[in-house]
Amino acid sequence: MTDTTTQDALRDLYTDWSALMAANPEMPIRLFRSIFDEWHQPTVEPEDVTYREETVGGVPGIWCLPTGADEAQVLLFTHGGGFSVGSASSHRKLAGHVAKTLGAASFVLDYRRAPEHQHPAQVEDGVAVFDALVASGRQPQDITTIGDSAGGNLAITIALSLKERGKPAPGQVIAFSPWVDMENKGETLKTNNETDALITPELLAGMITGVLGDTIDPATPLANPLYADFDGFPRLYMNAGSAEALVDNATRIEERARAAGVDVTLSVVEGQQHVFPFLAGRSAVADQELARIKDWYAQGR
Amino acid sequence: MTDTTTQDALRDLYTDWSALMAANPEMPIRLFRSIFDEWHQPTVEPEDVTYREETVGGVPGIWCLPTGADEAQVLLFTHGGGFSVGSASSHRKLAGHVAKTLGAASFVLDYRRAPEHQHPAQVEDGVAVFDALVASGRQPQDITTIGDSAGGNLAITIALSLKERGKPAPGQVIAFSPWVDMENKGETLKTNNETDALITPELLAGMITGVLGDTIDPATPLANPLYADFDGFPRLYMNAGSAEALVDNATRIEERARAAGVDVTLSVVEGQQHVFPFLAGRSAVADQELARIKDWYAQGR
Repeated sequence: MTDTTTQDALRDLYTDWSALMAANPEMPIRLFRSIFDEWHQPTVEPEDVTYREETVGGVPGIWCLPTGADEAQVLLFTHGGGFSVGSASSHRKLAGHVAKTLGAASFVLDYRRAPEHQHPAQVEDGVAVFDALVASGRQPQDITTIGDSAGGNLAITIALSLKERGKPAPGQVIAFSPWVDMENKGETLKTNNETDALITPELLAGMITGVLGDTIDPATPLANPLYADFDGFPRLYMNAGSAEALVDNATRIEERARAAGVDVTLSVVEGQQHVFPFLAGRSAVADQELARIKDWYAQGR
Repeated sequence: MTDTTTQDALRDLYTDWSALMAANPEMPIRLFRSIFDEWHQPTVEPEDVTYREETVGGVPGIWCLPTGADEAQVLLFTHGGGFSVGSASSHRKLAGHVAKTLGAASFVLDYRRAPEHQHPAQVEDGVAVFDALVASGRQPQDITTIGDSAGGNLAITIALSLKERGKPAPGQVIAFSPWVDMENKGETLKTNNETDALITPELLAGMITGVLGDTIDPATPLANPLYADFDGFPRLYMNAGSAEALVDNATRIEERARAAGVDVTLSVVEGQQHVFPFLAGRSAVADQELARIKDWYAQGR
């Protein structure tokens, strides 16, 4: 297969979901969760990784344990899906690839989802896991908060919440295609509307209502880190695809974090869709991105 | 949790699917596949198992490789789902548990599904994998055909097809809650209608049309092994739950195979639902069933 073909696996899945959503405008959250649990499909099973379910800090999840990894180093992985869909299962393979690449263990949280649980339940679950990992003897600097899309938001806001509480910070933060703009006003929502196969302002609006309800301010810093104080924030790696409607979520966080003196790296990859590392094991572009993260991670250790 | 609670995980999933199907009588096959890919949810991730995707004999699938297993022993695993839904992904965890219990490797086939591919495409894919495993140096007696529901049918009919072609047989055959009666006339469809949370004659009728179309005789032995010649068939293990509408598929195969002199074992477990080994790692009843299969497997080696 050419890489063009393999990259289509993610775009095709998004195109298919979009068609299903268009055909079923009243699709219940139950079926949204069902189709978004297919998010793992473009990802090839990572070899030499085992899995173990555990409840950590009261939050259930799946450990991804690559053979030979240093399990003292933990990736606290918050999955994407607009705070309301996606799961540890939908992201197991992606988290396994990242863990294997970095030589670390990854714990993928099944945090409480919206709309049953609104903000800040998701952030609190991440903080609870972080606290439990530290209580079990992990060093904060050996913990990385990491996530994609809404989970990229959480990777950032969990670190912000720890800082706000005066707790030790994670050693680093990684966000794949972070979705942070809860005011739903990014320019690239318009300019990349034709190239993004999944994300629309309407889809995001429904998810914002789910997680914030009618009463939580969409400029709340722990829900929308475009309004957060990044002073003293850990080193930060983000990526996004240039075809994404959400690419300017990453660029705006980059700008704000850099202005606060944060060591921030942003990788925008030409033509890629939302959370293109889901193509790990299938697309050379995704594997090259993971290799860049490996280098970045090693530089900070 | 009590075991009663954990057993509910499978029954509750089936009840939920049934409600979704009742609410959406025109649900497209696309969404059927989405919800049936949730079949893995009641199964706990088996520990100490790694996975590898491969195409074997032209058929894609997932290897489940327990740490320390004898990879010369292979479970050729055909997933259930009425020949039309389910996948290697939906059955990865179940196949991983069985492989770990038996100390063998398992290859879960993504065989061609109905209605895009009618009978005998599914049987032929299983035979192609068997042939490729033998060509790669595996001994036929070290291969077990195994599957659940429609995949239990395939575990049996792949062995029958090999016999019909004069090829070496697998060493043993295992069928979890096999679905074999393509005439849809079992007595327990009626008598267990109230206790089975998933299976109805109407659901089965749609799946029969999908795999046989309007032209294939539902008494074809390789589609409906209630009409097959079991003379010389390998040793056979089957199980089922007493609450199942399909329990008399297993009892009728038992009767026919035993009459032909086959070494057959049937385990009917009180109160259990369709393919109750999906509760592996969660329910003691499922784990006890896997332990019985381990003993049976060891006796034949």
